[in-house]
Amino acid sequence: MSVQRPASRLERRKTRTRQALIAAARDFLARQGLAEVSIQELTEAADVGFGSFYNHFGSKEELFHAAIADVLEEHGQLLDELTADIEDPAEVFAASVRLTGRLVETHPQIARVLTRTGLPYLDSDKGLAPRALRDIHRAMEAGRFHIANPHVALAGAGGSLLGFLQLWLEHPDLVTEDSPDELAEQLLRMFGMGHEEARAIARRPLPDRA
Amino acid sequence: MSVQRPASRLERRKTRTRQALIAAARDFLARQGLAEVSIQELTEAADVGFGSFYNHFGSKEELFHAAIADVLEEHGQLLDELTADIEDPAEVFAASVRLTGRLVETHPQIARVLTRTGLPYLDSDKGLAPRALRDIHRAMEAGRFHIANPHVALAGAGGSLLGFLQLWLEHPDLVTEDSPDELAEQLLRMFGMGHEEARAIARRPLPDRA
Repeated sequence: MSVQRPASRLERRKTRTRQALIAAARDFLARQGLAEVSIQELTEAADVGFGSFYNHFGSKEELFHAAIADVLEEHGQLLDELTADIEDPAEVFAASVRLTGRLVETHPQIARVLTRTGLPYLDSDKGLAPRALRDIHRAMEAGRFHIANPHVALAGAGGSLLGFLQLWLEHPDLVTEDSPDELAEQLLRMFGMGHEEARAIARRPLPDRA
Repeated sequence: MSVQRPASRLERRKTRTRQALIAAARDFLARQGLAEVSIQELTEAADVGFGSFYNHFGSKEELFHAAIADVLEEHGQLLDELTADIEDPAEVFAASVRLTGRLVETHPQIARVLTRTGLPYLDSDKGLAPRALRDIHRAMEAGRFHIANPHVALAGAGGSLLGFLQLWLEHPDLVTEDSPDELAEQLLRMFGMGHEEARAIARRPLPDRA
């Protein structure tokens, strides 16, 4: 059994170095592809010693993977908090779609990382995907969604969200304030809900971001 | 006015070289990211002289862009041919989704290129996107789809198709033969069609691939 004890100064510094590298990688991911940046550029942007990189990550790819997982986990935790008081699992799902669809305005860095790299993470066992699958399962059990294959439903909903974020980033003129609600309404219909109810649920007041 | 005349031997050779480079790029795109391959590897795989590359393309990126456009245009033309005899625009749309969803089996190279690189092409003015937008507009005009913003609808449908292809490529165990039909049915419901009609249209016999 491990006993929780205060982190030593060394441990705290290691955590800070790791977090600085991840933050630098997130920044690069939002601005460009992961191909061209060197480890030296990453350590310089993170303001840590070049040599410390390999104390934390085996390769550039490993760091980028950790950075993407970090983005997905951060956003997933935020959604969990914001939807904690909603009882209807269909409304939890809709609110998550509407909040994620607004990332271009609320968290543009996360939106860019998702559109550049998100597709392979639609079936990840961490971050957003398992939460969305959980909400879909709950809504099926509650008789709110009528879906044959929840994995196909998740892939479809996640992909459509990525497509929507891409549209907003590249053509903001084609999107309006309430387009994320329209997308959520369409996804509720996609999962078998009637038109009027889908419309009502997708227009409820959104939980406040603290 | 330009008069059509038979291509000279030189022109035919230039076309062959260009097509060989595009075919090599498609092959690389299906197997890996576009970052690591060199121009020399591309000309070797295409079996053309290194020097001829810059007669056709200004950069590696330009070739990859042409290769992706080539993939999208080829698949778009196939869909146009296969759905030419279908009158209902909603059924044209559904058949296109069902045929595209089956690419993993029928054209695995195209499926891999789409999942690796397709998201930024969801709003391209060539290839699949303008055809899908045309079908969505027609179905709206015919009163078959009830959508507020056809661009949001296109981004959602295209993204969900990419998510579905990704799911099939990575987790074939989670997908069955008729999963593409299930996805098409869900997209018809997403666009406002009733459950029974959506189900019927998404299960009609598919046009034969010649």
